[in-house]
Amino acid sequence: MTYPFLKGHGTENDFVLLPDPDLHLHGELPASRVAALCDRRAGLGGDGVLRVVRARYVDQPGTGAEQAEWFMDYRNADGSVAEMCGNGIRVFARHLVTEGLADASAPLPVATRDGLKTITFAGGAADGEISVDMGVPRLMGDTTVAVGETSWGAVGVDMGNPHAVAFVESVDAGGPVGPLLAEPTFDRSFYPAGVNVEFVEDVAPGHVRMRVHERGSGETRSCGTGACAVAVASALRDGRAEGEAVTRVVDLPGGTLTVDWTAEGRIVMTGPAVLVARGETDL
Amino acid sequence: MTYPFLKGHGTENDFVLLPDPDLHLHGELPASRVAALCDRRAGLGGDGVLRVVRARYVDQPGTGAEQAEWFMDYRNADGSVAEMCGNGIRVFARHLVTEGLADASAPLPVATRDGLKTITFAGGAADGEISVDMGVPRLMGDTTVAVGETSWGAVGVDMGNPHAVAFVESVDAGGPVGPLLAEPTFDRSFYPAGVNVEFVEDVAPGHVRMRVHERGSGETRSCGTGACAVAVASALRDGRAEGEAVTRVVDLPGGTLTVDWTAEGRIVMTGPAVLVARGETDL
Repeated sequence: MTYPFLKGHGTENDFVLLPDPDLHLHGELPASRVAALCDRRAGLGGDGVLRVVRARYVDQPGTGAEQAEWFMDYRNADGSVAEMCGNGIRVFARHLVTEGLADASAPLPVATRDGLKTITFAGGAADGEISVDMGVPRLMGDTTVAVGETSWGAVGVDMGNPHAVAFVESVDAGGPVGPLLAEPTFDRSFYPAGVNVEFVEDVAPGHVRMRVHERGSGETRSCGTGACAVAVASALRDGRAEGEAVTRVVDLPGGTLTVDWTAEGRIVMTGPAVLVARGETDL
Repeated sequence: MTYPFLKGHGTENDFVLLPDPDLHLHGELPASRVAALCDRRAGLGGDGVLRVVRARYVDQPGTGAEQAEWFMDYRNADGSVAEMCGNGIRVFARHLVTEGLADASAPLPVATRDGLKTITFAGGAADGEISVDMGVPRLMGDTTVAVGETSWGAVGVDMGNPHAVAFVESVDAGGPVGPLLAEPTFDRSFYPAGVNVEFVEDVAPGHVRMRVHERGSGETRSCGTGACAVAVASALRDGRAEGEAVTRVVDLPGGTLTVDWTAEGRIVMTGPAVLVARGETDL
């Protein structure tokens, strides 16, 4: 069977998109097909698959499907089901507006397994940055992380998934953080399900640089929820008052994200989304 | 500019194919475009680019262009020009026959920067293995290679590029060869331009298993000339007589290649070639 695909990325977090509006093409979308698509040598390559499905076919509670026209069926590269991806949903939204399936001039609701997300388009359909309301952060308190013999105090932030944010002098691979080949160590009683660990260096007021080790994936070029957790930890450290609107520019290896912590306490992440190819495959 | 591409692989050595028969699309094919296409996050991803060009446009001596209809313009992932790729030329040939641009029922001459290569199709156009005449090996004599503290005797074989073949008890990553994260050490006076190092384990008579560290690339899933060098070294070790036809089955991490050393002294490599996608990109 030959079917259409697109390839795209947000800050070099890359995805295979599978348009399947009426579930005619992929049925349950077997994990084996997702893994074959995401294989970086024998397939197309990607950090995950974004299946584009009309929300009317989704009867799972908590997805917000009744308030959206489209559902983002996100899968990890190994084929397992995932709830939400902040970089992926921008690429998903870019696809919808470039195909004329959604209107870039108004906020776009998208159903996900993590609930309804609202997308806004800063620069129109074809390019320009895209913003995602990532919800309300949950503060977890202080903890520690270590790489080899060096340990740091860290701030726990839950963005739907758990993060540990450590401020360091330098995130250079030649410095104490190193090349992050192995998993940083952390407090297993604090993070029983594991944790994404972010190392952050100050660049200028309101501007930081980070690297991230994602649980299950190792060091990656970008992590959307990680950038949000870093912005939250940075704003708290700098004394953000309850109800104050603050912004952090976050440089990652794969690009730059801007994170707003609104007066209402919500996190809005803004960044690029690029479609690089479209075609057909029989993987 | 939007232009067509295909993605394919041979034993998980993967390539972006750029049909450009009359040089209308890519001109000199800038290195920056090749690098953008081969980028595994921001692009399509590949070990290299195979541009498909009519041989009549090639006036470079030594390519065999006067005897072929098609020229394989092969580029490394960084955009630099390369001479020849044994896994790539099978994928290139698969593309020609599936598009009806060449006839799978007869030997197919293909011009390359390493001269004219002859392709034969064992199983027809759509699938089946593809054979490539890789030319005559040049024996370089004995040398040594080392990984960390462990060193082995090795056989030097030139297949157009230099190889050092070491027979080991086991190629398991848990064994003495290890994960090949760093470059094996070798005799710089023996290999002034560097070397591809192959580690080989016997599986059964005529059947070996190998891993390879490619110069400039690190450990890879497959190396066509490396498999040929391994077959040559294995046959010599097993006492191949001058003019004797011998065959070696070579398992690599990315698949299996069969290498024939013919009575005439030529090396013919046979293996799979798979096209996984086709589409358009503006990278």
